Amino acid sequence: MKGDDDRLALIVQKYGGTSVANVDRLKNVAERVIKEYDKGNMMVVVVSAMGDSTDELLGLMSQITSNPDPREADMLLTTGEQVSIALLSMAIQAKGYKAVSLTGSQVKIKTNNNHSHAEIMNIDNSRIHNELEMGKVVVIAGFQGINSKEDFTTLGRGGSDTTAVALAASLNADRCEIYSDVDGIYTTDPRLIPEASKLDFISYEEMLELASLGAKVLHPRSVELAKVNNINLYIASSFNYKPGTLVGGINQNMEKRKYVTGVTVNKDAVKITVEQVPDKPGIAGKLFTGLAEMGVNVDMIIQNLQRNQKNDITFTIDKDSLKKYRKKIEEIASSLGVENLYIDNEVAKVSIVGAGMITTPGIAGKMFRVLGANNINIEMITTADIKISCLIDEKDAEKALKVIHEGFQLDKNQ
Amino acid sequence: MKGDDDRLALIVQKYGGTSVANVDRLKNVAERVIKEYDKGNMMVVVVSAMGDSTDELLGLMSQITSNPDPREADMLLTTGEQVSIALLSMAIQAKGYKAVSLTGSQVKIKTNNNHSHAEIMNIDNSRIHNELEMGKVVVIAGFQGINSKEDFTTLGRGGSDTTAVALAASLNADRCEIYSDVDGIYTTDPRLIPEASKLDFISYEEMLELASLGAKVLHPRSVELAKVNNINLYIASSFNYKPGTLVGGINQNMEKRKYVTGVTVNKDAVKITVEQVPDKPGIAGKLFTGLAEMGVNVDMIIQNLQRNQKNDITFTIDKDSLKKYRKKIEEIASSLGVENLYIDNEVAKVSIVGAGMITTPGIAGKMFRVLGANNINIEMITTADIKISCLIDEKDAEKALKVIHEGFQLDKNQ
Repeated sequence: MKGDDDRLALIVQKYGGTSVANVDRLKNVAERVIKEYDKGNMMVVVVSAMGDSTDELLGLMSQITSNPDPREADMLLTTGEQVSIALLSMAIQAKGYKAVSLTGSQVKIKTNNNHSHAEIMNIDNSRIHNELEMGKVVVIAGFQGINSKEDFTTLGRGGSDTTAVALAASLNADRCEIYSDVDGIYTTDPRLIPEASKLDFISYEEMLELASLGAKVLHPRSVELAKVNNINLYIASSFNYKPGTLVGGINQNMEKRKYVTGVTVNKDAVKITVEQVPDKPGIAGKLFTGLAEMGVNVDMIIQNLQRNQKNDITFTIDKDSLKKYRKKIEEIASSLGVENLYIDNEVAKVSIVGAGMITTPGIAGKMFRVLGANNINIEMITTADIKISCLIDEKDAEKALKVIHEGFQLDKNQ
Repeated sequence: MKGDDDRLALIVQKYGGTSVANVDRLKNVAERVIKEYDKGNMMVVVVSAMGDSTDELLGLMSQITSNPDPREADMLLTTGEQVSIALLSMAIQAKGYKAVSLTGSQVKIKTNNNHSHAEIMNIDNSRIHNELEMGKVVVIAGFQGINSKEDFTTLGRGGSDTTAVALAASLNADRCEIYSDVDGIYTTDPRLIPEASKLDFISYEEMLELASLGAKVLHPRSVELAKVNNINLYIASSFNYKPGTLVGGINQNMEKRKYVTGVTVNKDAVKITVEQVPDKPGIAGKLFTGLAEMGVNVDMIIQNLQRNQKNDITFTIDKDSLKKYRKKIEEIASSLGVENLYIDNEVAKVSIVGAGMITTPGIAGKMFRVLGANNINIEMITTADIKISCLIDEKDAEKALKVIHEGFQLDKNQ
């Protein structure tokens, strides 16, 4: 696209549901878009459905059926963004600028046939290019596409972000900006730790590891897509002009690289101890293969060899999987000759994430010392290239978050 | 379509906004559709937007602009029917039947580029045929189409009826049924004359002449389209199973043909008298050509030659045209040497319509006698093949309607 006119940058902006929740906010978005357009940029704007409008449609649907045909549900829900794009285009036009709205079907955002969680296969840029060349702001419906039968599909969770990133990749955009009611990525959840500080920069990898923080701001799926296509994402608020957070490649901002970028806590884990597994080869393999076949994601694993030649195997899964598959898990364990299955729901996983920790010795040790000094018992530990996680008692979760945040001086981030 | 399976009839049904105004009414429509499907018919169902939903969208729009881009307004408004078709399909599916919803763009209802008042150019039946062959009820968004740029268009007034008739023609349907909250066509407006009786049958031509009655039930545009394509329209209520009115070709039901089918009154007329026009050839021609060039529709015309070799020309136009073009009309009159322009807003046009009156002498005379016997002065008269209209004082309008309805015994219609 840049070739069309070398003076201009092409910017993709995405505005979430709260940013377009009512007419005043739509007008605010129009102003923000025009501000960038007036600098000489070409603007492609992706919008979600207005505030509660999706909930209203779901409310109507639930009065008709509790088990809707996914194709018809997508037919219903895609109207939400269509309303937003039409009104935003009008708001831009009302300020004397040219704009045109396009649905997913008009852009030909081709997806597979998985209604309600479709994946984007490819995008036809020709209409977008034509409209940009005419000097128009192009307003595109997020969250939606069209399948091979020309039926409307929706992209599921994180859908509008994914639309924006996919468009940025397809159009070879200079910038991709994601606006919501959150003004960036923080070192930890500011609602839990008031000292949390906003990050200027975070790598894709760190962002993905911090999913539990970022999910409210940016769905991991769109981060993956940005990473694969090397699209920098700028995360900021549509309600102010405070600087946000840039999400980009790990090699960027080398000088600014931090040992520890953020700390998170996750109470969704449940610890399962399979007691007294006979120490025969392949037992653990059979157990975890069985879990994998059910689609259960196992997170942390510990195996202890006892003196009686029997093992305890301890692992964590998420609470939802336990609820769904508890009976099956017990059956597998029983078939393997397991004597006892012990389940502990009251655990929490506290994690530190940082691209710099790979090359910095002593980070893990410092984390354990900080927890120990505060009388927080570590039940399990896992480490990955850029993440260290400790399983602790759920009652210590907030305390752990606080002392680690202080210990690594994350409040002094900026 | 009938060729696909000779056992089945293909029925196009259309349900208006009040018929799908809420979830309960959508479920009622689903039941009605299924009732016909269960008889072995193939069902194509056209629906309007739900009740007030269009007004809600217009309300949002009006907060943004008083002068919306028609393309963007169509982008906005077409969501209304899309919501209806998705929910109606779900309601049909919830009762255990197969259904699929299709927007105007998916059916490829191709229109010209006149946003907000587009005309249907052609319809691609292939998708509809495919879905019907799979045993599905096909639910189609009324009021909307797609232009050559693949932009969404709306058909304007009477749009959903027009969609239904166009589909019935294109699919060579066996029946086209138009359901609303009105249970048929009456001899006159039942709100004005409680004795008004419902007609079993009315010809296209009579229906068109009775536009002022029928507009609330059936827009003249869809009647024209039905007439051209020889599609019988069945007009009935979706709120009960009372028999409705069949609108069809004038040669049908010869035996049941009535001298007078209905009587209407129209208060939208305004009478203009151009006094003392010089009696030169071509003056009247110039006057009415001038009006035609402005797009003003002249209804009744009288010209009286006076003794002084000057004419009075009296004609009627609608009140809206007068408001818009008054200044221009005065300019034309002045340029023709007219001395005075006299405008009378307080007139009403009472009309009788009947396909049988062409061949029945004395109908006009009877109308004049009835009015005269009731001391209603006739100011102007026009006659056409199946219609006779009298211009009277506006204060006599309801009385004229009543005495004519009685005089022709229209209350004894059934």
